[in-house]
Amino acid sequence: MGDALGEDLLAAVVVGVLLIPQSLAYALLAGLPPQAGLYASLLPLIAYAAFGSSRVMGVGPVAVLALMISQALADAPAGVAPHDAALVLAAEVAVLLALAAGWRLDALAALLSVPVLQGFETGAALSIALSQLPVLLGSSAHGSSLLQVIDSWRHAAVPWWPLTAVYGVAALVALWLAKAPLLRGLERLMPAWRAQAMTRLAPLGVLLAAIGVAAATQAGGRGVDLVGSLPSLEWPLGWPPLDLALWRELLPSAALIALVCFVSSLVVAESLARHDGMRIDPRRELAGLAAANAAAAIGGGMPVAGSFTRSVVNRQAGARTRMAGVFTALWMALAILVLARPLALLPTAVLAATILAAVAAVFDVRPFREAWRYSRVEGALMAVVAGLTLVQGVAWALAVGVAGSIALLLQRTARPHVALIGRVPGTEHYRNVGRHQVELTPGVLGLRIDESLLFINARQLADVVQQQLAGHPETRRIVLLMSPVNRIDFSGLTALRALHELLRARGIRLDLSEVKGPVLDGLRDGGWSAWFDGKVFLSHHQAMHEDG
Amino acid sequence: MGDALGEDLLAAVVVGVLLIPQSLAYALLAGLPPQAGLYASLLPLIAYAAFGSSRVMGVGPVAVLALMISQALADAPAGVAPHDAALVLAAEVAVLLALAAGWRLDALAALLSVPVLQGFETGAALSIALSQLPVLLGSSAHGSSLLQVIDSWRHAAVPWWPLTAVYGVAALVALWLAKAPLLRGLERLMPAWRAQAMTRLAPLGVLLAAIGVAAATQAGGRGVDLVGSLPSLEWPLGWPPLDLALWRELLPSAALIALVCFVSSLVVAESLARHDGMRIDPRRELAGLAAANAAAAIGGGMPVAGSFTRSVVNRQAGARTRMAGVFTALWMALAILVLARPLALLPTAVLAATILAAVAAVFDVRPFREAWRYSRVEGALMAVVAGLTLVQGVAWALAVGVAGSIALLLQRTARPHVALIGRVPGTEHYRNVGRHQVELTPGVLGLRIDESLLFINARQLADVVQQQLAGHPETRRIVLLMSPVNRIDFSGLTALRALHELLRARGIRLDLSEVKGPVLDGLRDGGWSAWFDGKVFLSHHQAMHEDG
Repeated sequence: MGDALGEDLLAAVVVGVLLIPQSLAYALLAGLPPQAGLYASLLPLIAYAAFGSSRVMGVGPVAVLALMISQALADAPAGVAPHDAALVLAAEVAVLLALAAGWRLDALAALLSVPVLQGFETGAALSIALSQLPVLLGSSAHGSSLLQVIDSWRHAAVPWWPLTAVYGVAALVALWLAKAPLLRGLERLMPAWRAQAMTRLAPLGVLLAAIGVAAATQAGGRGVDLVGSLPSLEWPLGWPPLDLALWRELLPSAALIALVCFVSSLVVAESLARHDGMRIDPRRELAGLAAANAAAAIGGGMPVAGSFTRSVVNRQAGARTRMAGVFTALWMALAILVLARPLALLPTAVLAATILAAVAAVFDVRPFREAWRYSRVEGALMAVVAGLTLVQGVAWALAVGVAGSIALLLQRTARPHVALIGRVPGTEHYRNVGRHQVELTPGVLGLRIDESLLFINARQLADVVQQQLAGHPETRRIVLLMSPVNRIDFSGLTALRALHELLRARGIRLDLSEVKGPVLDGLRDGGWSAWFDGKVFLSHHQAMHEDG
Repeated sequence: MGDALGEDLLAAVVVGVLLIPQSLAYALLAGLPPQAGLYASLLPLIAYAAFGSSRVMGVGPVAVLALMISQALADAPAGVAPHDAALVLAAEVAVLLALAAGWRLDALAALLSVPVLQGFETGAALSIALSQLPVLLGSSAHGSSLLQVIDSWRHAAVPWWPLTAVYGVAALVALWLAKAPLLRGLERLMPAWRAQAMTRLAPLGVLLAAIGVAAATQAGGRGVDLVGSLPSLEWPLGWPPLDLALWRELLPSAALIALVCFVSSLVVAESLARHDGMRIDPRRELAGLAAANAAAAIGGGMPVAGSFTRSVVNRQAGARTRMAGVFTALWMALAILVLARPLALLPTAVLAATILAAVAAVFDVRPFREAWRYSRVEGALMAVVAGLTLVQGVAWALAVGVAGSIALLLQRTARPHVALIGRVPGTEHYRNVGRHQVELTPGVLGLRIDESLLFINARQLADVVQQQLAGHPETRRIVLLMSPVNRIDFSGLTALRALHELLRARGIRLDLSEVKGPVLDGLRDGGWSAWFDGKVFLSHHQAMHEDG
C-alpha cells in the first residue's frame, strides 16, 4: 500500500505537468476563460475516481470536446456568458450519461462505428489545428470550421501580428524539438527513464520560458494577446444557471457531446485495460463520466472526458490505484494557487502552439488507407465524415456518419440468407446444397435460415422461401432448420405468420426444427399455437423423415 | 385476351364507383381543392400500369398520405397556394422514389418495423377521424392533430351547424348500414354476387342522394358548406412551380411521404401477390410509384400511393391485367366531365362521413394486444408511435418509432454471442459446452462466434473472449470457429485485430477455423497477413488437434 501511494504521488506530479498547459489551451479552444479549464481538472478527477471503472484514466478537458463546446456556444442565444453556457452543457451531459447508465443505454456507443469515429477524430484534429492558426499568428480571425475561419480571416481587422507569431512559431518549434529530437539527444547523456521524464517536462518548460520572456519584454504592451489575470481564486462551487430556455437550446449539443464523451472515453479505457488484461464495465464508465461532468458543472469547469495522452502518461508514470487521480487534482489545486499570477502573462499564441503540437501527434492517414483497402464504401464514409467535420461541424458529420453506418448495415443484412440443405450421405447431418455433396428428400424442402428474424430482414422471408419453392414445384412440406435463429422480434413473428399462411394457401405444410429454447418459449408466450398448425422437431433429421 | 379485356372493363367501373367519393374526400382531408383528388386518380393510374410490378394495385389518393400532406402544408410558407405546394410534394416524392430505385435503396423500407407501421396506421386513422369531426358537424374548427383540433374547436366562431350535422350524421349512418346490414338484407333477396355489387354502389348512392337533397332544399343558401364548383375542366398538364425555396422547405416532408408511400404500397402489393402466388420486385415497385407521383405532379394531382381497399376491390371485381388501371383512369375522366356540375352541390359533411366510414373499417386493437403479449417493449413502442401520431403528428411519430426500433435492435444484438464449444465424444463435431455433453482439449479454447462481426457488436468481441479466458487461465491457444460469421465490416476487422494483439500480449495464439469463403477473401484483400500470425483451418477438429 505504502509503495502504491508513492508511485501514485509521482504519477500525479507528472500528469499535472502535462495537465496545466492542456487545461488552459482547451479552455481557449472552447472559447472559455482559462479558469474553466483549470477547474475542470480538479473536482472531475476526484468524482471519476469515486465512480469510474478505470484505475488509470485521466479525466478532464479534451481537445475534441473543446471543439464541440465552441461549436455549441456559437449557436447559443446572444447575451449568455459562454462560461455559463458551458456549465449548463456539463450539467446536461452529466444528466444524460446518468440516464444512459440507469437505462442500460451503453449499447448506444455502438452507433459510432470505427469509420465514423476515425473520420471524426481526424476531421476534428484538422478543425482544431485550423481554429488555432489565427491565434498562433496573432490574427483577430476566429472560427471552428473551415469556411468560418477562411471567411473570418478574409475580413479580419488584424490579419496577423508579427511579435505574436514569433511567440507562437517559436513555441511550436520548441515543442516539436522536445519530442523525438530532444529525447534522442538526452538518451545519449543519461539513462532512458530520466531522459523520458525530462522530455515530459518540456511542455511546462516552454510555457514557463514564454512567461519569462513575455514578462521581461513587456509583450502585453506590444500587442501580444495574453491569457490575462484569472478571477480571484475562491472556491467556485455553485449551480449552473437554471435558465430553462437555455437548457432546451443546448440539449441537442449536450446529447452529441455526451455520446462523444462516452465513446472516446470508452475507447481510452478499453485500450488501457486490454494492455493490463483487465475488463471495463461500460455502465460503471457511464456512471463515472456522469459524476465527473456533474462535478465540472458545479465546480466552475466545462464538459470533460477521458484523455488518451494523459491516461497513457499516468500509467507509464506508475499510477497504481485511483488515488493517482485524486493526487493529480490536489496538485492542480496547489498549482492554480501558485501559478495564477504568472499564467496571466502567458501569450495565448503559446497555448495555441501546445494545441497544434498535441493534434499533430494524433493526425494519421493510415486508417483511411486500411479502411479503403478493406471496403471502398467504408473508406469513403470515413473520408466523408472527416470532410464534414472540417467543413460543416461535428453535429452534421456525426449525423451523416451514423445514418450512413446504419444504412450500410441495413443494405447488407436486409436479405435473410436462406440455404437449401440436404443430407450428407450416411449421416444425420444436413449441409448447404450449393457447397456440399448431399441428398435431397423428394417432396420435402429443408431450408436453413442463417439470420435472426428481425424487422430489418423479416419482410423478405416469404420472398426468399418462394424463390426456393420455384425450383421445387413438387414440394408438399417445408422444414425450416432454425438453429441459427437467435432471436425473433414482433416483425419476424408477423413474417413467419405470413409465410405460414402463404404456404397453407398453396397446400404446403410448414414445420420447424431445432428451434432454440428461448426462441420457442417466446413463440409460445406470444400465442402462436392459435395459428401455427405445423410441428416442431428437436432434430432436423427427424423432421425430414417424419412421414418416411 | 378478349375475355380479360371484358373483366378488366367491369373491374374498372366497380373501382371507379369507389374512387370518385374517395378522391374528393382525400383532397378535402389534405386541405386541397376537390379537383386535386380527381386528377390524382387519372394519369397516376396509367403511369403505374406502365412501370409498376403489381397487376391489380389501385394507385391514387390515400387517407394516410392525405393526412401527411395536410401536416406538410400547415408548415409551408405563407402565400403559397396549397395545391401548388401539393404538386411540389408530388414531384419531390417522384424524384426521391426514382433515386431510391436507381440506388437500390428499397432496403430502407425495413426502417419501418411492424410495430412502427401498425402504430402509425392506427394513430393516423384516429387523427384522420378527428380532423373530419368538425367538418362532419359543420364547425369552423380545423386541424390534423389532437391538440390543434381541441384548441381550434375551443376558439371556433361556429362550434357546429345543425343542418350540416344532419347531412353528416345521416350520411355516416347510411354508410354504416350499407356495409354489413344492407349486405345481409340483400343476400336474402338476390344472389350473393349481385348483393355485393349493390353494396359496393352504396357509397356513390349516398353521394348522389345527398347531392339531390342538397339541390332540392337549397342547402348552400342555409349555411351548409358545399364542395363548390370545380374550375373549368381543361387538361391540367403543367410543371409544378419551380420555386427553389419552396422545394427546399418541403423536402423533409416529401422524404417522409415517399417512405410511407413506398412501404404502405409495398405492404399492399405483397399481400395481393402472396394470395396469387406471385412475387413483387421492390425496385420495380419504386419505379412504378415514382412514375405515378410524377404523373400526379404534372397532371394537377397530389401525392399518391397504392390503396388497399381499392386494390382488393379491383381484384375481387375480376381485374386480370394492368389494363384495368388504364380503364379506371378513362372512366374517371368521363365521370369528371359528367359529374363536375352535380359535385359542386355536394355538402362537405358527406365527404367527411365517407372518410370516417373508411377509417373506422381500418381501426383495430388486435395488433396491439398481440404485440404486447409477444414483447412488452415492442407493444409499448407501437402504442407510443400511435399516440405520437395522434398528438404530435406523423413526422415525430415516425422519427421516434424508427429510432426506437433501431435502439431495440442495437440493445438486443450489441453483445455478440460467443459459445465455448467442445468435442462430442467419438465424433468430429463440436457443440456448446452449456448444452451438450462434450470434451474440452486442455490448453486450447474452442469458441464459436454466433454473429457476423459488425460495428454494432464488434467493440465487445475482446471483452466476451476475455470473459471465457478468465475461466480457463491455462489457455495457450484460442481457435475461433467462424462458420456462423457471414460478414465482417471494418469495425469487425479492427476488433479482430485488437483481440489478436490482446492475446499476443498475453502469449496466447489466435487461430481461426471454417472461415466462410467470401469472408476469408475479404480479410486477405484487406491485407490482414501484415498483422495476423495465426493459422486458418478448414475444419475445427483439425484446428483443435493441430499440435496434438
